[in-house]
Amino acid sequence: MKPLKNNSSHKTWKDKLHDIIYEADTPIGKAFDVILLILILLSIIFVMLESVKGLTPATYRYLYYAEWVITIFFSFEYIARIVSIKQPSKYIFSFYGIIDLLSTLPLYLTFFITGSSALLAVRALRLLRIFRILKISRYIGESNKLAKAIKDSGAKILVFLFAVLVLCIILGTVMYLVEGEESGFKSIPISVYWCIVTLTTVGYGDIAPATPLGQLIAAMIMIVGYGIIAVPTGIVSAEYASSGHQPKKVNINTQVCSNCNASDHRDEAKFCRKCGEDLRNE
Amino acid sequence: MKPLKNNSSHKTWKDKLHDIIYEADTPIGKAFDVILLILILLSIIFVMLESVKGLTPATYRYLYYAEWVITIFFSFEYIARIVSIKQPSKYIFSFYGIIDLLSTLPLYLTFFITGSSALLAVRALRLLRIFRILKISRYIGESNKLAKAIKDSGAKILVFLFAVLVLCIILGTVMYLVEGEESGFKSIPISVYWCIVTLTTVGYGDIAPATPLGQLIAAMIMIVGYGIIAVPTGIVSAEYASSGHQPKKVNINTQVCSNCNASDHRDEAKFCRKCGEDLRNE
Amino acid sequence: MKPLKNNSSHKTWKDKLHDIIYEADTPIGKAFDVILLILILLSIIFVMLESVKGLTPATYRYLYYAEWVITIFFSFEYIARIVSIKQPSKYIFSFYGIIDLLSTLPLYLTFFITGSSALLAVRALRLLRIFRILKISRYIGESNKLAKAIKDSGAKILVFLFAVLVLCIILGTVMYLVEGEESGFKSIPISVYWCIVTLTTVGYGDIAPATPLGQLIAAMIMIVGYGIIAVPTGIVSAEYASSGHQPKKVNINTQVCSNCNASDHRDEAKFCRKCGEDLRNE
Amino acid sequence: MKPLKNNSSHKTWKDKLHDIIYEADTPIGKAFDVILLILILLSIIFVMLESVKGLTPATYRYLYYAEWVITIFFSFEYIARIVSIKQPSKYIFSFYGIIDLLSTLPLYLTFFITGSSALLAVRALRLLRIFRILKISRYIGESNKLAKAIKDSGAKILVFLFAVLVLCIILGTVMYLVEGEESGFKSIPISVYWCIVTLTTVGYGDIAPATPLGQLIAAMIMIVGYGIIAVPTGIVSAEYASSGHQPKKVNINTQVCSNCNASDHRDEAKFCRKCGEDLRNE
Repeated sequence: MKPLKNNSSHKTWKDKLHDIIYEADTPIGKAFDVILLILILLSIIFVMLESVKGLTPATYRYLYYAEWVITIFFSFEYIARIVSIKQPSKYIFSFYGIIDLLSTLPLYLTFFITGSSALLAVRALRLLRIFRILKISRYIGESNKLAKAIKDSGAKILVFLFAVLVLCIILGTVMYLVEGEESGFKSIPISVYWCIVTLTTVGYGDIAPATPLGQLIAAMIMIVGYGIIAVPTGIVSAEYASSGHQPKKVNINTQVCSNCNASDHRDEAKFCRKCGEDLRNE
Repeated sequence: MKPLKNNSSHKTWKDKLHDIIYEADTPIGKAFDVILLILILLSIIFVMLESVKGLTPATYRYLYYAEWVITIFFSFEYIARIVSIKQPSKYIFSFYGIIDLLSTLPLYLTFFITGSSALLAVRALRLLRIFRILKISRYIGESNKLAKAIKDSGAKILVFLFAVLVLCIILGTVMYLVEGEESGFKSIPISVYWCIVTLTTVGYGDIAPATPLGQLIAAMIMIVGYGIIAVPTGIVSAEYASSGHQPKKVNINTQVCSNCNASDHRDEAKFCRKCGEDLRNE
Repeated sequence: MKPLKNNSSHKTWKDKLHDIIYEADTPIGKAFDVILLILILLSIIFVMLESVKGLTPATYRYLYYAEWVITIFFSFEYIARIVSIKQPSKYIFSFYGIIDLLSTLPLYLTFFITGSSALLAVRALRLLRIFRILKISRYIGESNKLAKAIKDSGAKILVFLFAVLVLCIILGTVMYLVEGEESGFKSIPISVYWCIVTLTTVGYGDIAPATPLGQLIAAMIMIVGYGIIAVPTGIVSAEYASSGHQPKKVNINTQVCSNCNASDHRDEAKFCRKCGEDLRNE
Repeated sequence: MKPLKNNSSHKTWKDKLHDIIYEADTPIGKAFDVILLILILLSIIFVMLESVKGLTPATYRYLYYAEWVITIFFSFEYIARIVSIKQPSKYIFSFYGIIDLLSTLPLYLTFFITGSSALLAVRALRLLRIFRILKISRYIGESNKLAKAIKDSGAKILVFLFAVLVLCIILGTVMYLVEGEESGFKSIPISVYWCIVTLTTVGYGDIAPATPLGQLIAAMIMIVGYGIIAVPTGIVSAEYASSGHQPKKVNINTQVCSNCNASDHRDEAKFCRKCGEDLRNE
């Protein structure tokens, strides 16, 4: 049962704007999301290209103009999001509200603070906005179940990762004593870094044991690491398997309350479950 | 119950050819598959050897002749496949039909377009033809169950991999700012590449953090990567475990409909389930 | 049901000290644990920084003084732990008693034995003390379940790791014969080390096969390693999943018997389950 | 119920020898196994040390003498194994019979064929003999269950590994075309080798993509590899979990039939289940 949205003759322009920007049940709302998705991806590609050396000056100029066009679009979108909601503070101080601001502001700030590439790199956070758009797409069910499994096994994996870290600090100290500075184990922090690189099976090879005893200990660390990599996997497997038996499925639509910005409403919901706002907009 | 194939006196030569090329229930059909399998493997080895520098000119000439012999055999096979089926378009535009054409054509094209090694490398796609042959072998049950488990968990793993990619872009940008160009983090795309190399625990070591802060962040990325590698594994484990309870097993033979090229018919099937063609060939 | 601790007017100063040092149910006990946790982490950071070259002499002096302050605090804590327990030997010869001594003593020994950096690195064992403090924190349930799953699958994983080691020795010998000394495979132990580095997917790259045959064997080792990494993971997954069905949960508090140092008492316990000591301290 | 072995007054010396060498229920049998285990491990360490360069000539001489002592002991053991069994051919042509011969013979052959280090390296196969000894140890239950899980999932993992290999050949060909020879992708076989190194997350770094397009494809290969590493793990997890429900446990002792060399007899067995030989030796 779709929410009764089609009798839009009674709606104000704010309500219409809210439907377009925040929701994806109407054709215009869907089109808006697709355009936004493309613009975010384009702007990320532009941010990445900007950092590449050796392009022609014309390309940098083009990237600069494109960046301004996208930023102005995002600015209008940010303002529209504030205007179309009844309690703007609910949006402004929400996770996505802050992300939206952080990914729009840096370019304007370059007028006042010059040469701050760190500031411009904040724009990479724009990428997080994709999750808001995808959330209201067909992956909604998958993401939720996945998020649940990760959340359930989170505490156990944290305990495990902490134990791995303690192990790395102790083994790193041992390797510092065994190998010494000639092999690249210059200090205990560097040795701990090496131990993490080894135990997680990344193995850059920028630092590698050179003495027979060091190689023996390294081999033992690897064999142990091979055994303990199984632990977090086992935890998630078990959690995911047990979280699979969900009692019943609820159809969630893309409506967002125009008063308090709460989302994930059920299809049959007529009032916002958080603030009581009428979702039918009659 | 084997299909009634032995009263082959009534069959036309096209039907016989169809049985030999497309099916593997008769001794000739099996022999044809084994020969094809050996030829594909040989031709792949020849394609690979061709690219090796430092062999004697005689070897290159031998490889060239062998390649022509195999290509001509594949050409005849391709024509035979078209001729022996009643609706040739069903085969020509099927996945394997296109693969067959792509892996046969390049050598002929070298007469018209010279020096195109890229064109010749397309022949590596021949390898995919092995799956058609193995499909009608004893691994059929295994592959199907495996394929089902991968398909079931595909969407969830895609969501997960996308989240990993977003994480890599953001962390790559951070590392670009922290490490700078001296350590090899020349641009954001390179940093993102490094981050993917690290998070997936590949760890080439061509780019490695050199500053203490960079090494600290890299260590954190690895520890996190060690934790999240568990997620796709957990998903497939759970899916595979639950997909194991198949209601009942159906005996599938290697018959392929000579009209519409549909495969995976049941042993007791008398008519093609897609086009109604008589499978008994009486 | 919390243990009756508030009528502390009847308690001796030893009992009070015991409550503060060994337990974490009272505000002072919790504060003591937090201070101890911070001091341990600080002292580990100091030990690590001491090994870093290139700091200013003033920094080394500051680290030296800080180290003495922390060591003296740990010494007092060690004495207090001995004094406040009725059977001191139960603490002194326990796992944590030995760790406490080992992490306090080295600095004092530098008065008698000079220049022994190996001795000072023993202080890294302090880190293990964190587990005692965290054990009496909210992670208690998680750690116990995790420890159980690891313990249950321990023997199986050991058998597996031993088989991997045997495989590495045999394959390492083969690679030593195939590659020889030019590629870095200088001796059989080095080749076995390389094989462990490869099979565990660490892959430093300090030693890498250079001959075609060596690369072929290496590729086969990797493909096999990719397949067998699944084994320990599968074991832990299955063990963890089956260990999840615990009959019932028991509330365990942070009380430690002041007579025999036994811990993990239930909330409703009135007497120590090991020595019969009255836990209520009335 | 232990087999009735203590009335050894009726036994011949061959039976006694058989009990000592093949079984581990008597104190002498256990002692023999422990001595054998130590000698095997020692001899492996000696074989490995022999290949190390830079030791003193005295050490090499000592290793040479020790090797002869151990080889002579193994020779006597081999003869004793043949003598004490009623059907020697059952032992000689068994897996362990061939391993025993291969690990004893090479040293004798150096009298006839000189300088054959490859021949001497065959001695590393001695290590496999450990499995025979451990089989009759307390790990017996664990190994059997583990072996079953690996065997059950073996066919599926083989299909999977074959698919990975096909993927590596196709992607390796693509990388050869994209990167070319400057980056180390000298031929298609080398590129396929690189692809296997990358997909299995080993990542030596001896060959690494240098062009942007190559790095993009490499990043995609890694992300995909990160996803598909889950497949074999999921298979083993599911198999291991389902193989855990064994109907009932049978007590197996270390007796080996003195006629046909069959092992793994049940505690209550009075006659060999394969040849009918009386196991009680009365």
